[in-house]
Amino acid sequence: MKSAIEELEEKGRAAKTASRRLAYLSTEVKNKALHNISDDLVTKKDDILTANQIDYKAAEASGMNAAMLDRLMLDSSRLEAIAQDVLAVVALPDPVGEVFDMRTLPNGLQIGKKRVPLGVIGAIYESRPNVTIDISILCLKSGNAIILRGGREAIHSNSALAKVVQEATTRAGMPDGVVQFIDNTDRALVNHMLRMDNIIDLIVPRGGAELIKFVKENAAMPVIAGGIGVCHTYVDKSADVNKATAIAFNAKVQRPTVCNALDTLLVHADIAERCLPLVAAEWAKAGVEMHCDEQSLAILKQNPALRLVPATYEDWGKEFLSLVAAIKVVDSLDEALGHIECYGSGHSEAIITEEYGAAMRFLNEVDAACVYVNASTRFTDGGQFGLGAEVGISTQKFHARGPLGLKELTSYKWIIFGNGQVRA
Amino acid sequence: MKSAIEELEEKGRAAKTASRRLAYLSTEVKNKALHNISDDLVTKKDDILTANQIDYKAAEASGMNAAMLDRLMLDSSRLEAIAQDVLAVVALPDPVGEVFDMRTLPNGLQIGKKRVPLGVIGAIYESRPNVTIDISILCLKSGNAIILRGGREAIHSNSALAKVVQEATTRAGMPDGVVQFIDNTDRALVNHMLRMDNIIDLIVPRGGAELIKFVKENAAMPVIAGGIGVCHTYVDKSADVNKATAIAFNAKVQRPTVCNALDTLLVHADIAERCLPLVAAEWAKAGVEMHCDEQSLAILKQNPALRLVPATYEDWGKEFLSLVAAIKVVDSLDEALGHIECYGSGHSEAIITEEYGAAMRFLNEVDAACVYVNASTRFTDGGQFGLGAEVGISTQKFHARGPLGLKELTSYKWIIFGNGQVRA
Repeated sequence: MKSAIEELEEKGRAAKTASRRLAYLSTEVKNKALHNISDDLVTKKDDILTANQIDYKAAEASGMNAAMLDRLMLDSSRLEAIAQDVLAVVALPDPVGEVFDMRTLPNGLQIGKKRVPLGVIGAIYESRPNVTIDISILCLKSGNAIILRGGREAIHSNSALAKVVQEATTRAGMPDGVVQFIDNTDRALVNHMLRMDNIIDLIVPRGGAELIKFVKENAAMPVIAGGIGVCHTYVDKSADVNKATAIAFNAKVQRPTVCNALDTLLVHADIAERCLPLVAAEWAKAGVEMHCDEQSLAILKQNPALRLVPATYEDWGKEFLSLVAAIKVVDSLDEALGHIECYGSGHSEAIITEEYGAAMRFLNEVDAACVYVNASTRFTDGGQFGLGAEVGISTQKFHARGPLGLKELTSYKWIIFGNGQVRA
Repeated sequence: MKSAIEELEEKGRAAKTASRRLAYLSTEVKNKALHNISDDLVTKKDDILTANQIDYKAAEASGMNAAMLDRLMLDSSRLEAIAQDVLAVVALPDPVGEVFDMRTLPNGLQIGKKRVPLGVIGAIYESRPNVTIDISILCLKSGNAIILRGGREAIHSNSALAKVVQEATTRAGMPDGVVQFIDNTDRALVNHMLRMDNIIDLIVPRGGAELIKFVKENAAMPVIAGGIGVCHTYVDKSADVNKATAIAFNAKVQRPTVCNALDTLLVHADIAERCLPLVAAEWAKAGVEMHCDEQSLAILKQNPALRLVPATYEDWGKEFLSLVAAIKVVDSLDEALGHIECYGSGHSEAIITEEYGAAMRFLNEVDAACVYVNASTRFTDGGQFGLGAEVGISTQKFHARGPLGLKELTSYKWIIFGNGQVRA
């Protein structure tokens, strides 16, 4: 009998072989595969929902909290929404084969770059089953084979979804083996997967900070890591207070458990007395707990309806992932920039301002994946950015930054058309 | 007294601080710095050549071989050529600040990408002193601070050149600290440098296979590695024999010690008897030793002027870096593609053909940094490709592939211009 490691190696080699053909498959076949996936998510929903129920009941019995259970749960309307999202990626242009930077050198050589897939992408992700579909469709459309390793809690759901994807790709005429699913949840397989740098060209970890750290430290191949968002919104002295209030509310409250939610509100001292009470009153209605520096505490403490806590050093640079926000009054744009440089995680940062110069300085000087003027950091998302979906959000600078869509899953090669040229 | 490690950490922090300002320095100041470097290479040539003489004499005394000595040696005309090369980079457009992929979303958000420097680049390189200048000018023009760690053999030359660069940048008004040079050749400092991922955003190793392997395995930050070139030239059955002979000669002989030189010649069986004797006769005049498979040996053995050796398994996939070439006769384009997939290092591969379909298949299916039709692989070079110079040649697919110029030393950030938008 084959060991689990041997089976993983076999799946890896099959993916590698398939990736060679997938690399120059027509857009038509790739779109057909995605169409099939979209259709099958609806026509095969009974199988998927039955599998999901097994995971859900086991998770419920094990005492998983309500937020996590909600992330795990699939139903007909969620499957239909995912099926719709797949069609959004069908509608996007195929990045593969694009020729760019083409020019003719003085010696007559025509030289340029041609976009190509990365090859085989490994995804290691935690419980949300829709990630199986998001990653699969983006990788397939960009011509990459995939090895999926989802979390233990969603193993039946992920397995059923991967089966849908595999059947849909085969029916479209894609080579066998383009989608590999690891149905064994033994942690040792993750360790082995991270050493398969002869097979896997890129690893994308999606999950908590611990998973991401483990993958970064142990992967022999390139990793695109991110997902940790310590996000600031800075209200400049020239801000429109209504915009500031609406944006701060949206950034903190609309979905507090995700990486692009607001963690720290920085407010210029000149506007703090006018703006902070308005923001805090709105936040209080949603149950936000505020960790305040001395100055903001002095301004807000007169309102007994607020949940105020004196901020400690640990509050700066903390990703709360809940209805908690830190608040700090700053004396200048420079102080705000310094604070963000020191405590930000390079994910999403926003300034609220009506002053051109302040907006430009913030855009230029903040070193983060996504820098906003007068908008909520909640927009940092592949779907919102028009990428159809995302395989993750990168907070590194290397290769790709921010939401990772189709183009970010490609590389290029130099192509050179000659007519007998030799080097002098 | 400070330890060498403390000193390295201090230099790292100084580079990091400088990189923040360097990131949005005007093109004017950056070009001024490069102009100063170009000028000073000539005006301060006595200091540089004196330092180089110390290295040269020590190397000579230690028994360094002639090729290595030649790489180490500087003289007036070489310095003047380097000074000219600097001006080529001055003439290139500044990649930093370029805004691209800008569009307006349905909700009115204007969203796009802005090109930014990577931050601090660490270079670990072996003896050739001109690398100090190449890397410095490309990093500075692309807005990156640098930490230079050159080889022991060129320590005096590199130190003198780094001093020229430092003085030239300061005189141009660049922030202090943008160029850091490690003048201690203790290997422990390299180990420590590779752990400074809080400071160094990218490590570029340049040197032999052993150095590159060591850096890849030990660096905590991203690495762009390459430089190992197992390069094939495939002569298709439809090839123009004159072009094939000229290109094979150039690719093998023009500079055999470098990574883009030809290692293996693949020849289609239908053209082998006509083409191989011509290529081999030219190669023989330059002293090339040929490691032949059975079929090519049978064709060539009638010419007693040739240095022929029966090929062994080790010859395929070997980077010779000398006047040695492997020769293999193949029965089809498919066999050539399979051989290259199996033995190539993803550097530079060429086809010689007059047939459109063969050219297109080779361009599409060969997975390498640079794929040529009817030209010598010796063109794989930043200068030849119009990039001014190169910090190295990447054989990885992640981030950048092939010669690394200015653009390849940058990242981007998403910039989003709003007017109060919040996420629904």
